[in-house]
Amino acid sequence: MDPKLGRMVSALLALLLLLLGGMSSPSSPQAGLLEKVFWYMDLHQDEFVQKLKEWVAIESDSIQPVPHLRQELSRMMAVAAEELRRLGASVDLEDLGSQQLPDGQTLPIPPVILGELGNDPGKPTVCFYGHLDVQPATQADGWLTDPYTLTEVDGKLYGRGATDNKGPVLAWINAMRAFRALEEDLPVNIKFIIEGMEEAGSVALEELVRREKDRFFSSVDYIVISDNLWVSQRRPALIYGTRGNCYFTVEVTCRDQDFHSGTFGGILQEPMADLVALLGSLTDSAGHILIPGIYDHVAPLTEEEKELYGAIDLDLEEYRNSSRVKKFLFDTKEEILMHLWRYPSLSIHGIEGAFDEPGTKTVIPGRVLGKFSIRLVPHMNMSVVEKQVQQYLQYIFSQRNSSNQMAVSMVLGLHPWIADIKDHQYLAAKRAIKTVFGTEPDMIRDGSTIPIAKIFQDIIQKSVLMLPLGAVDDGEHSQNEKINRWNYIEGSKLFAAFFLEVAQLHE
Amino acid sequence: MDPKLGRMVSALLALLLLLLGGMSSPSSPQAGLLEKVFWYMDLHQDEFVQKLKEWVAIESDSIQPVPHLRQELSRMMAVAAEELRRLGASVDLEDLGSQQLPDGQTLPIPPVILGELGNDPGKPTVCFYGHLDVQPATQADGWLTDPYTLTEVDGKLYGRGATDNKGPVLAWINAMRAFRALEEDLPVNIKFIIEGMEEAGSVALEELVRREKDRFFSSVDYIVISDNLWVSQRRPALIYGTRGNCYFTVEVTCRDQDFHSGTFGGILQEPMADLVALLGSLTDSAGHILIPGIYDHVAPLTEEEKELYGAIDLDLEEYRNSSRVKKFLFDTKEEILMHLWRYPSLSIHGIEGAFDEPGTKTVIPGRVLGKFSIRLVPHMNMSVVEKQVQQYLQYIFSQRNSSNQMAVSMVLGLHPWIADIKDHQYLAAKRAIKTVFGTEPDMIRDGSTIPIAKIFQDIIQKSVLMLPLGAVDDGEHSQNEKINRWNYIEGSKLFAAFFLEVAQLHE
Repeated sequence: MDPKLGRMVSALLALLLLLLGGMSSPSSPQAGLLEKVFWYMDLHQDEFVQKLKEWVAIESDSIQPVPHLRQELSRMMAVAAEELRRLGASVDLEDLGSQQLPDGQTLPIPPVILGELGNDPGKPTVCFYGHLDVQPATQADGWLTDPYTLTEVDGKLYGRGATDNKGPVLAWINAMRAFRALEEDLPVNIKFIIEGMEEAGSVALEELVRREKDRFFSSVDYIVISDNLWVSQRRPALIYGTRGNCYFTVEVTCRDQDFHSGTFGGILQEPMADLVALLGSLTDSAGHILIPGIYDHVAPLTEEEKELYGAIDLDLEEYRNSSRVKKFLFDTKEEILMHLWRYPSLSIHGIEGAFDEPGTKTVIPGRVLGKFSIRLVPHMNMSVVEKQVQQYLQYIFSQRNSSNQMAVSMVLGLHPWIADIKDHQYLAAKRAIKTVFGTEPDMIRDGSTIPIAKIFQDIIQKSVLMLPLGAVDDGEHSQNEKINRWNYIEGSKLFAAFFLEVAQLHE
Repeated sequence: MDPKLGRMVSALLALLLLLLGGMSSPSSPQAGLLEKVFWYMDLHQDEFVQKLKEWVAIESDSIQPVPHLRQELSRMMAVAAEELRRLGASVDLEDLGSQQLPDGQTLPIPPVILGELGNDPGKPTVCFYGHLDVQPATQADGWLTDPYTLTEVDGKLYGRGATDNKGPVLAWINAMRAFRALEEDLPVNIKFIIEGMEEAGSVALEELVRREKDRFFSSVDYIVISDNLWVSQRRPALIYGTRGNCYFTVEVTCRDQDFHSGTFGGILQEPMADLVALLGSLTDSAGHILIPGIYDHVAPLTEEEKELYGAIDLDLEEYRNSSRVKKFLFDTKEEILMHLWRYPSLSIHGIEGAFDEPGTKTVIPGRVLGKFSIRLVPHMNMSVVEKQVQQYLQYIFSQRNSSNQMAVSMVLGLHPWIADIKDHQYLAAKRAIKTVFGTEPDMIRDGSTIPIAKIFQDIIQKSVLMLPLGAVDDGEHSQNEKINRWNYIEGSKLFAAFFLEVAQLHE
């Protein structure tokens, strides 16, 4: 059967069931409403996909500092604003001015959408955060299809931004649209903040949130972010924590100019020798961080938390294979997940100033800059970590009796984020997942750092929920990024169900 | 007084002294001949400088793979060949074909000059090696004058190639010219091999030497290279050794793709952690190489050799200051020189595949390639060193129990070279230095690797002498390279005196 025809038949069956359900009186008025909404979504799913196709077609790349791409970004924001206005939302496009790049070039920052639909004081207000900018992509990178032409193959919708983050933003809009189209009252007031610079570090966003704290955000009860992935291909997840990050540089200088290893090799304390010793002192071969005291403030593992890891749907063998890693540091799912989510890790990223090109240059670098970072977890304290790293590296360096200069700097500090999973909206999201997917969610964290969650939590001081829609294999930031049609449509339903659940629990 | 006028007066005074000397009968006919030659050189020094200016004006850069620079190189070789022919030499321009660059581009190799003047079987044959290609230079690099316009300031002749190696090649030609101009018989047969690819690794030269071993080189008794510098600003030197070099790569691979430190940090044995541990195991903080057995074959220090270091004119404080190094690993001149010349050293050059740019990328490199090299000294054996390095790094890696792949390769192996300083031509050069400069030379080595000396020694199996003309501060390969007018003219005299001394000693 033609897949389009098949989908039509499914929708009509759903309608039939709905009508039959109506006759035999539904278990609750809410359940009946939701059935109607789901039916609408099944029936209109091709329109939803078509809309995603239109959005993917806009090359809203915020990474490459090219004026015409910034124009595309602004166009993307205007197209989204127009879409929201058509649904009855009031929308402001906040001008954030321009940014100056390290090369001196000035580029406009795309405006941020601040929108709202409904302001009934009897309803809770849920604010959705999303972004419409994407990572760069060209077919030459290894895409099997044009990255800016959404292409469906076996139920997978391939295209740059399909899962990160245009699909989830549209899923939220689809949920709103279904209520409006069915002329049903939205159970929640909705706000949205949609930016166009997430991939480039959310330039100027924190400032905007701070500025709007007592205006736009004053009525917000819950914040929802849907910018991650499940850890499974089929089982939904709720994300309740992300690690922070302290990024360090350690610079060793003999002089500002390089030396020739023939004419100076043998009489210098070479900066690279100092630097590899410093970097080598940071971890042992089992990945354990050797900086004294670094684990002191890591939150103790409770029995309750421990149980969460066991329940998670992760096939370790499949994960290892798809990661193309011969062996991980740990052998059990629980240890793997804990070391990604709830324990700090230290990675050495590289060295600036040494010889890094192909060939056999016989240089003694005169000044080298090592880079490493520590992923922070609750309840590590950034300034304590900074001090511990400083003191430890000073100590290691002093042991070397080197005549070189050493300087350690923490150049970036981002807090970890953790949510209270007993909060109303987590409960609401769990119920919505049960309704749409018939299962409990994986309760997961993200090992990487998503500063915006912590920014919202700290500034607006409301509960932040991460409710991802995409499957583990969606390949965000990679070639052949995709979102499954199933995830996109069921995700739209999930948001609709979430509206109802959060409204009910808020009462 | 105008410097040009001053030089004229000096030359006339020299002539006067010569005439007076002639009347009072010179100590030997040889001394009289030399005085005439020196007088000629003083009188014609501006022509010598003018010739150097013409040669420096040719941008014979062999490093930048640009067709028009290769044309300039070929023009340089043709100009030099013509110059030699005018002096009566027979010259062949040996076509070495072309080279293919890593990017697929094919560029012609400039021809090598094989020339000779005189073939009297009663005279020794001295073969001079030099090169006429230069390192790249643009005024934007920080030159105070146009690098290709030889410019005299305070007796310093600034220009790319002035000291490396156009000046010394011309000094040799100036010496030949003086004898010819004075219609005096050259005391030696002269051969020369002059190439245009030295800075780019003497492409195809070894092959040519091997091919010409029993033809062009069959009659050669001595080989002279003048492509280094003194260790002093005023005191000449003889060079009797250079270090070799074994260049190693050590590759650690987890997978061919990088990881994100958020999503994988904590569960991987990171290749960079393995690599810094491997590189950090190579030396201690005092520069001592930790590879077992590496010092086993280093030639023992004799009393005779030890005395050479003490006699060398090196102001350690000035050397340290001009090197802009706060502190060397050793405090005495003798230790410094021995560790540059007669002991091996190990330098870490850099890492390929890690994050080496400005910024704070949170990458876990999947595959990294460390690079280091060991400067070899007599009587270290290259294949023994290779085995020692391999075994040691395998051992260190095995101690880490890493699941990554490691591979060590010796990608370049160049032998050290050492001459017998009791050889005739060393004695001849010492005497010539005494005659021209009134002093004993510093008997020095070069810590860097000059493969051509070892190639000549091994293939032709004749004594190789390094007889530098330039002062320690000439800045070869640097901005504002120069040769002092004094070094250039006295160096021309030195070669003339050397012709006579070597002829006399050879008898």
